[in-house]
Amino acid sequence: MRSTTDLPVLPTIEACDLAALFAPNAVAIIGASDDTRKYGNWIAVQALKGGIPVHLVNRSKSTVLGRPAVPSVASIGSPVELAVIAVPASGFEDAVDDALAGGAKAIVGISAGLGEAGGEGLLLQERITAKIRAAGARLLGPNCLGVLDHSSSLMLASNEFPVGNIGVISQSGNLALELATLLVDHGLGVSRFASLGNQADLDAADLIDAFVKHDGTAAIAVYCEDFRDGRRFAKAAQRAAEAGKPVVLLTVGATDASVRNAKSHTGAMVSSGIVVEAACRASGIEQVASPAQMAHLLQALVRSRVPAGARTAVFADGGGQASVASDSAAEQGLDVVEFGTALQSAIAAELPPTAAVSNPVDVAGGGEQDIMCFQRVLGHLAASDDVDATLMSGYFGGYGSYGPELAAREVEAARRMAAETATAGGTVLVQTMNWQSAAASALRDGGIPVYRGIEEAAWALGRLARRRAEPATGIPALPSPALPVEDTGYYASRQLLAGAGIPFVGAAEVSSETQLLAAAATLRYPLVLKALGDEHKSDRGGVILNIADEAALLAAWGDVDARLAPPSCSIEEMADLSGAVELLVGVRRDPRFGPLVLVGLGGVFAEILRDVRCALGPVTAAQAKGMLLSLRGAALLTGARGRTPVDIDAAADIVARLSAVAAAHPEIAEIECNPVAATPAGAVALDARIVLD
Amino acid sequence: MRSTTDLPVLPTIEACDLAALFAPNAVAIIGASDDTRKYGNWIAVQALKGGIPVHLVNRSKSTVLGRPAVPSVASIGSPVELAVIAVPASGFEDAVDDALAGGAKAIVGISAGLGEAGGEGLLLQERITAKIRAAGARLLGPNCLGVLDHSSSLMLASNEFPVGNIGVISQSGNLALELATLLVDHGLGVSRFASLGNQADLDAADLIDAFVKHDGTAAIAVYCEDFRDGRRFAKAAQRAAEAGKPVVLLTVGATDASVRNAKSHTGAMVSSGIVVEAACRASGIEQVASPAQMAHLLQALVRSRVPAGARTAVFADGGGQASVASDSAAEQGLDVVEFGTALQSAIAAELPPTAAVSNPVDVAGGGEQDIMCFQRVLGHLAASDDVDATLMSGYFGGYGSYGPELAAREVEAARRMAAETATAGGTVLVQTMNWQSAAASALRDGGIPVYRGIEEAAWALGRLARRRAEPATGIPALPSPALPVEDTGYYASRQLLAGAGIPFVGAAEVSSETQLLAAAATLRYPLVLKALGDEHKSDRGGVILNIADEAALLAAWGDVDARLAPPSCSIEEMADLSGAVELLVGVRRDPRFGPLVLVGLGGVFAEILRDVRCALGPVTAAQAKGMLLSLRGAALLTGARGRTPVDIDAAADIVARLSAVAAAHPEIAEIECNPVAATPAGAVALDARIVLD
Repeated sequence: MRSTTDLPVLPTIEACDLAALFAPNAVAIIGASDDTRKYGNWIAVQALKGGIPVHLVNRSKSTVLGRPAVPSVASIGSPVELAVIAVPASGFEDAVDDALAGGAKAIVGISAGLGEAGGEGLLLQERITAKIRAAGARLLGPNCLGVLDHSSSLMLASNEFPVGNIGVISQSGNLALELATLLVDHGLGVSRFASLGNQADLDAADLIDAFVKHDGTAAIAVYCEDFRDGRRFAKAAQRAAEAGKPVVLLTVGATDASVRNAKSHTGAMVSSGIVVEAACRASGIEQVASPAQMAHLLQALVRSRVPAGARTAVFADGGGQASVASDSAAEQGLDVVEFGTALQSAIAAELPPTAAVSNPVDVAGGGEQDIMCFQRVLGHLAASDDVDATLMSGYFGGYGSYGPELAAREVEAARRMAAETATAGGTVLVQTMNWQSAAASALRDGGIPVYRGIEEAAWALGRLARRRAEPATGIPALPSPALPVEDTGYYASRQLLAGAGIPFVGAAEVSSETQLLAAAATLRYPLVLKALGDEHKSDRGGVILNIADEAALLAAWGDVDARLAPPSCSIEEMADLSGAVELLVGVRRDPRFGPLVLVGLGGVFAEILRDVRCALGPVTAAQAKGMLLSLRGAALLTGARGRTPVDIDAAADIVARLSAVAAAHPEIAEIECNPVAATPAGAVALDARIVLD
Repeated sequence: MRSTTDLPVLPTIEACDLAALFAPNAVAIIGASDDTRKYGNWIAVQALKGGIPVHLVNRSKSTVLGRPAVPSVASIGSPVELAVIAVPASGFEDAVDDALAGGAKAIVGISAGLGEAGGEGLLLQERITAKIRAAGARLLGPNCLGVLDHSSSLMLASNEFPVGNIGVISQSGNLALELATLLVDHGLGVSRFASLGNQADLDAADLIDAFVKHDGTAAIAVYCEDFRDGRRFAKAAQRAAEAGKPVVLLTVGATDASVRNAKSHTGAMVSSGIVVEAACRASGIEQVASPAQMAHLLQALVRSRVPAGARTAVFADGGGQASVASDSAAEQGLDVVEFGTALQSAIAAELPPTAAVSNPVDVAGGGEQDIMCFQRVLGHLAASDDVDATLMSGYFGGYGSYGPELAAREVEAARRMAAETATAGGTVLVQTMNWQSAAASALRDGGIPVYRGIEEAAWALGRLARRRAEPATGIPALPSPALPVEDTGYYASRQLLAGAGIPFVGAAEVSSETQLLAAAATLRYPLVLKALGDEHKSDRGGVILNIADEAALLAAWGDVDARLAPPSCSIEEMADLSGAVELLVGVRRDPRFGPLVLVGLGGVFAEILRDVRCALGPVTAAQAKGMLLSLRGAALLTGARGRTPVDIDAAADIVARLSAVAAAHPEIAEIECNPVAATPAGAVALDARIVLD
């Protein structure tokens, strides 16, 4: 495995729109073929359907697909900005040389068997990449499936995609295809598609930057297994979100099985689930677990507004659906509040007397009586201060099946509902069993997302609401590296952290009885004696607590010395832990995303609760406090069952200081204080441990 | 609200097949109409499409829908077994009288405005129901949407349903329709549909029993808001599961909003979520949260086998999909184990060299090379002892788009895959983006469930695996009621429970200083003094702990007497709580489902963990032990972080005994011991509380 610092150092190029890749003057397909089993055939067939001049390049044939072919890009005579290379790995470098000679500013490497094969293949890939960059060109792939841009009519993928405004960046062709079929259900399609492949040069971050500059793209869907420079990726995604083009991410790594597989798939280095989650929270990336979730959320993001809060009106044309929708909404953290009497009265005036109007609203046959009642009720909901968003559920779109007149009126009702929502600036999501009806299309066209399943609609609305409730915190900057740590012994670790302002109990390192007694004279009993030089001190009886006086101290020393003969010991004041809560505080360096800060409850709660919060480091004390307060067991800190609250600010300060040390020391793989004792009167670290990379 | 004991006592009728309802000799539709806005029109139109003789009954018209109508059922001249009544509530009783006079043995009450309106409407409904039962007939509804049976060609619902083998029992017409559209996606349909309405006579339990006897029904989908006699419902569902026709249940009540709405919808008494969950676990009912989940699970239940365990092979035709499927499987509790070398070698021999074979399996283009590789790999998986089930994911069904020859071979591959799976008795679930292809249909026809979304397939497989891992425990029988409890004072409660064998600390009730000292002489210090006669003893300082000797006892007595002047006090031995874990043990009587046993961790963990397990009572000690061990914080009981394990059997015994007391006392709404101290040396109750209904 290689860490981010090992990545080849390439000439810096400003984030650009990659025009040569997405809207070139012409395209050369090196390896264009008549053999229908070959990628060079599939991609040439697609390319010719596009609107950009295509040159078919084949070393041995003068015609391919019934069109004249040329032996090389260089022989074309005029510069060709984009070259696609679909030849075996052994011919890849020659093809690159030819493309550069022919004026290519962008190269799409279809060829497999390079970097993902490791060893020689990886070295060759790195050498060719450096050559391409030195020529002022960029490389997509190799081992990628192509690129497509509907605005420039560039068709360089093996499949067609439906047209729309979703930019797709993917390390898997099948998943991109699957997403496309799902987008169609929602009346959506693809603006651009780029296959990542090995990311030898252009990586997901570069492509996100280019997609943000693309007018035709409203949101960006990313399937990625290897984030390369993870913080750069997350920052690009943050810029995209700030530009109003949110990134929805599907990745893997929740299980050993998927990590095992991704490695064999693209040689990807997969980051652990908690690291990616922390990066997403920080950058405003929306992480999803499946292509279907991706499509559901994209529909909400490109059509709907983020609601001002979670108070949700449920509005259904049947009692059962009203109840199921209410439970679905609550499951997603939405608040199906009971309406005030004014809103209830206004809604009641629009509906039959058997309608329910307190929230959920059950139309109770009002749709059959007057289809426009949906629009009028929506109008009251949009105008009310009682609700932030509306989740509509049921049968809408099906009334039209009763006859052509009602069908036309239903579509008109849909148009008015969408217009009303747009004017009021509201958030409305609709689920209906008639999800592919004309009225459903009219809703979508007017900017209202329509779903087939209530759990999908409720989930998407819950995610929209979360964007407001938990806004992105931003990717923290990393400081310049400090002088590297070399000694990771207990005392050196303790001193590094104490020097950074982390409070420890009074202590001294001693290696003789004389030193022991001299040190003890400066400390306050009761004391703790720890044998050093062994990572598993406590397991082997090398930690003796509650030493009350000098006699007990000498007995403890004799005991430890006889049993373990440690090179030295630490003699420490024993903290008063009455009213204390033990915390675990640590930082782990992820090879892709850098320092990750972890806080959790220690002691017996560590095993019972497995309750940990993570964030990209370094964190401020305010962020650390937020992490502590968001622990499931936070009530222990804030005073559960009559306990005195502990000094959370002091604990948060330790977390922030530890994270700053870790951020300044890229050579540290893991650093932790376990436990930190948070007491009503402050917080103090009781241990320190550093592991170098 | 009415409890189960208030339900009208009707003559007992053995569970029957309800032939008069589902396969009558003829049908009379009372209220048949030409007015297309009326239910009597819709249902008559549908009825005439069916295969059973239909008599249209209209008091004022001699023709309806262009056919002759009769003024009454009685005037038809020959007995008509089934009458549908679709007249206003005011005419309902007359119509019932006519139907019974005409020989009806089953009546479907469409009419609304009766029981669900409460008050007079409810009284009228009860009177009419008794009359129908006295005549030896049965009533479905009123306020229901009809009934349908594809085996007998009975069409008495307002809508058509696709034909299939799923029985649908629903308290909502829209949800039944929505389920039907979703079943079609899976190549499934409806065998029978019955709308529950107010369940004045026939309830969901009766209908489940009748559906179990119906040859055309393979599984039963129930949407129900009010379970009436909940244990009877659960027992019927248990019988259905035992007959190989599992019940899948969608209900409401997770939120205040849905409860509010269900009440207004059908006057339903909604049971709380935890009660329903407990009933489902006991009876083998599969509870779901949406119509889509219902369809997904039904497909798995009617097509697939329950796997022997959770070891799951993931088998995909792309690396990305293999990884996403692996993560999805793990999310559902499935175990994507690494294969042994023998199985890996066998699979590797069938696939290209770049394929991943350790689990997940990535076909890596093998499908394009030889579509039969899917069948061969599946054969190795089915024959291996390494796996219990296979989750296939990706593109299968799409290879056929490359040409007619491959299309035919792909369907043939699908047939062989299904045959191989059936022969081997394996469990295979498939997700493919080409879910509506000919090959997908061939898989379904051969008994392999096919899903569109990976999360759906993984979820359905997870639920199948759970049926094996957590089999139904059965609905416990309720004992005959004991003499009712009248005194719910602390000492009376304590004595009731102590008499049932629950150990308490030594204690005595005292109301004078003389009694106090006499009692103390028989007890072991330290003691606890509790002021009685006040529910909030501890909050108001009425509990004094740790009384070391007689002097302290007298001081405590004087203090409590001066501050609270209680009518009496309890003087108790103070339990040694070192090494103890505090538990909450209680039983709550649900009006529909009877006693519900709750156990949880007490003390600080109660607030932090909110960790409670529930079961229908009474429970055996073995069941109670299982509940305690399934608490999230069970490690505290079994010895977390070096603690001495507590005596779980003793704690479980208390739970079982408390549940037996509660079961024998239907007049008790709530009974609890809070806390029970579970120590390494036994368990003892420290408090007792009873609340009557």
